[in-house]
Amino acid sequence: MTHPEGAGRLRKAPENFLDRAGIQRHLADAKAGRRDFIRSAFAAAAAATTATTAAAQAPGSRADGDPAILQLPEHSRGLGKPVVTDGYGLPSKFERNVQRRQSPGLTQTRQASVSFAPLQSLFGIVTPSGLHFERHHQGWWDIDPSQHRLMVNGLVKTPKVFTMDELMRLPSVSRFHFIECGANTGMEWGNVAVPTCQYTHGMLSCSEFTGVPLLTLLEMAGADLKKGKFLLAEGADGSSMTRTIPMALVTSGEVLVAYGQNGEMLRPENGYPLRLVVPGVQGVSWIKYLRRIEVGDQPFGTKDEVLHYVDLMPDGTHRQYTSLQECKSVVTTPSGGQQLLDKGFYSISGLAWSGRGKVQRVDVSVDGGRNWRTARLQGPVMSKCLTRFNLDWIWDGKPAVIQSRAVDETGYVQPSYRQLRAVRGTRSIYHNNAIQSWLVKESGEVANVQLS
Amino acid sequence: MTHPEGAGRLRKAPENFLDRAGIQRHLADAKAGRRDFIRSAFAAAAAATTATTAAAQAPGSRADGDPAILQLPEHSRGLGKPVVTDGYGLPSKFERNVQRRQSPGLTQTRQASVSFAPLQSLFGIVTPSGLHFERHHQGWWDIDPSQHRLMVNGLVKTPKVFTMDELMRLPSVSRFHFIECGANTGMEWGNVAVPTCQYTHGMLSCSEFTGVPLLTLLEMAGADLKKGKFLLAEGADGSSMTRTIPMALVTSGEVLVAYGQNGEMLRPENGYPLRLVVPGVQGVSWIKYLRRIEVGDQPFGTKDEVLHYVDLMPDGTHRQYTSLQECKSVVTTPSGGQQLLDKGFYSISGLAWSGRGKVQRVDVSVDGGRNWRTARLQGPVMSKCLTRFNLDWIWDGKPAVIQSRAVDETGYVQPSYRQLRAVRGTRSIYHNNAIQSWLVKESGEVANVQLS
Repeated sequence: MTHPEGAGRLRKAPENFLDRAGIQRHLADAKAGRRDFIRSAFAAAAAATTATTAAAQAPGSRADGDPAILQLPEHSRGLGKPVVTDGYGLPSKFERNVQRRQSPGLTQTRQASVSFAPLQSLFGIVTPSGLHFERHHQGWWDIDPSQHRLMVNGLVKTPKVFTMDELMRLPSVSRFHFIECGANTGMEWGNVAVPTCQYTHGMLSCSEFTGVPLLTLLEMAGADLKKGKFLLAEGADGSSMTRTIPMALVTSGEVLVAYGQNGEMLRPENGYPLRLVVPGVQGVSWIKYLRRIEVGDQPFGTKDEVLHYVDLMPDGTHRQYTSLQECKSVVTTPSGGQQLLDKGFYSISGLAWSGRGKVQRVDVSVDGGRNWRTARLQGPVMSKCLTRFNLDWIWDGKPAVIQSRAVDETGYVQPSYRQLRAVRGTRSIYHNNAIQSWLVKESGEVANVQLS
Repeated sequence: MTHPEGAGRLRKAPENFLDRAGIQRHLADAKAGRRDFIRSAFAAAAAATTATTAAAQAPGSRADGDPAILQLPEHSRGLGKPVVTDGYGLPSKFERNVQRRQSPGLTQTRQASVSFAPLQSLFGIVTPSGLHFERHHQGWWDIDPSQHRLMVNGLVKTPKVFTMDELMRLPSVSRFHFIECGANTGMEWGNVAVPTCQYTHGMLSCSEFTGVPLLTLLEMAGADLKKGKFLLAEGADGSSMTRTIPMALVTSGEVLVAYGQNGEMLRPENGYPLRLVVPGVQGVSWIKYLRRIEVGDQPFGTKDEVLHYVDLMPDGTHRQYTSLQECKSVVTTPSGGQQLLDKGFYSISGLAWSGRGKVQRVDVSVDGGRNWRTARLQGPVMSKCLTRFNLDWIWDGKPAVIQSRAVDETGYVQPSYRQLRAVRGTRSIYHNNAIQSWLVKESGEVANVQLS
């Protein structure tokens, strides 16, 4: 490992300092292609907050005369707050800007919209449930679990209806999986559109899910697993979200009817009290507020899979049922909107994942893809789960283009934009898994760029 | 797997229904040895809440005439709440009783006290940070990270002071580990004292921690790793919590100076912005609000290790520096305070852990230890981390005593109370890792018992 004596300072992205109006101006500037949008955002941030929190602190030892050392703070002298001040605790007030956020202007109504997880502020692989990305089609609800039912019907011997109590008494499993919206990075198909990784890649989260294998419920209902090659999954919210799930995914035991997320019950925004977990498949198939599973012998051709969530190909046709999330990765530090304040050591860190299994390797380039070094993968590397990678880097102060390229256990290699567009064109919304490029300018500012 | 057609109903423990006053009465009844304390708690709960949420729902299919199926609820017809209703989301209002709680009367002041995690309501292995157990010695604080410093001094070439910014730029690792207070289950040394697993075992949590290996900081300061066989770790809160850490734990790379917990910054109650993570060692050594590391050539003999956190042995001597948390387990369902409402299938579920490494096996008995069956371990099984286990069980309606016995990768077997007391006596507070027994009565009520 490089000895990080000369570790460089990093200024966080504007999301950490700006209020909602500031973020909106910042994103509008970025969208309009104003070249100084990062600088102006920081100017606004500096005006809106104190210098100590907005700017990175000066480096090095300050053993001589630093009042933070010499003067005992109140918390070293006084009596703090008692236990159970909060029966359910919250983050520090100093972290209040670490929030999931909308991308202003992306959608017309906030009930059929998206909020993005602040990937640039997260560590490891677990997404705190309070920061889990949101995608609602008709708004979210806090449903009374005692009134919620799950029906299993169709090609079954005995249609069944389960209460939550009944489901939660069945043998359960707990597994770590990522969930990614099929539209993640969807704004970037044509060109650079958003400035930070919160918006380029933030429709991505990872949790420990607990639930009952759907296969158990199908067996209890006597489902015809031979004729029944497809399932319909239906949600209870007003959007009547319905998706076809291939039976092959279910018979593997991987698909869960889940009630638990990161140790506790699902959050209302994520489908409380019950959602489908379909590892490796795009988020829209992880039906929230799950109320019905129907076994059928062909795809159901629902509105949410034949009209929406389809891929517009270069020849003008739409590709349907492309649900799997291919291997992908993103560097979260350094990333767009941040600024390197010094030459010297930086720890490059990011996330990799694949809908086909485990991540096998992540390579990182700092020269736009000419040379690659293999990053350290943080264990445990789990199937269809986020994997954190890290790599040491010495920045020499010259422009650099940072990229990560993931390879999964099937040997699939994450494509460049050139490779992806050669097949998919530029007018899709869904399933953009291209290599992300972050340009570090001589000023240290980091910008979202695409290499031609 | 047993086919769980006849899954029995389970009534949750009183914590799920009672308010704070109700819990206090309940615990007082339990302490006074009143035999009907569980029944009276449920009577109080029934009076305090509606039948639908207090009692388990009736089982079986209700496809005929169930209004929860036939009448479309409002959430299927209306427009829900928008994205970013909360930039940092919270659990459902229906889960408001899932809280960490005090054990009334255990401590005189709430600033030097404990709150217990609701293990009976948790799934998998991750503890939601809002429910992480608390142990404060002088209350908790929300410390400004820009003013926080970590000093490394003692047997080092160059004493160092780090800001949070500096620490967070160094190469980091992320690892899942349990943390258990040395006093967990400490009330049970003499006899049964508390009714539910929230209080018997709830000073236990598990998180993904992110931070810098302490070894990195010692190397940067030029620590003498030959003479420096011990470290002092000191916290910044008013208790001046100080503990000796053997250098051997640090040179393995396992000890972390951590700022991240479950993907985000540490919570203030758990040491924000910086705490020591000492995998496998009792929680008191995981110094919160970490402000100083001193390298020394002998144990430091601090107040918190020579007077407190010592084990009173049968011969009247005190054993010091017994920091390691030995292999232990507990069944969380069914557990004390719950009630089985039917004969039939139940999924026994619990947690196992060891301060020496991975859990190798968990055996479960339902007849007080005469016969044992090996439980399913939920992967990934990680070192010095909680491991979830599950086992199918058919209850025949007769009294049953449910126990779990964990074995770790060193071959260490969790002891019975008889075995533990033969060595340790009955007057200790710390390091009680005995096998827990839950008595299922013919009435289905589950009580905390100890077999002689």
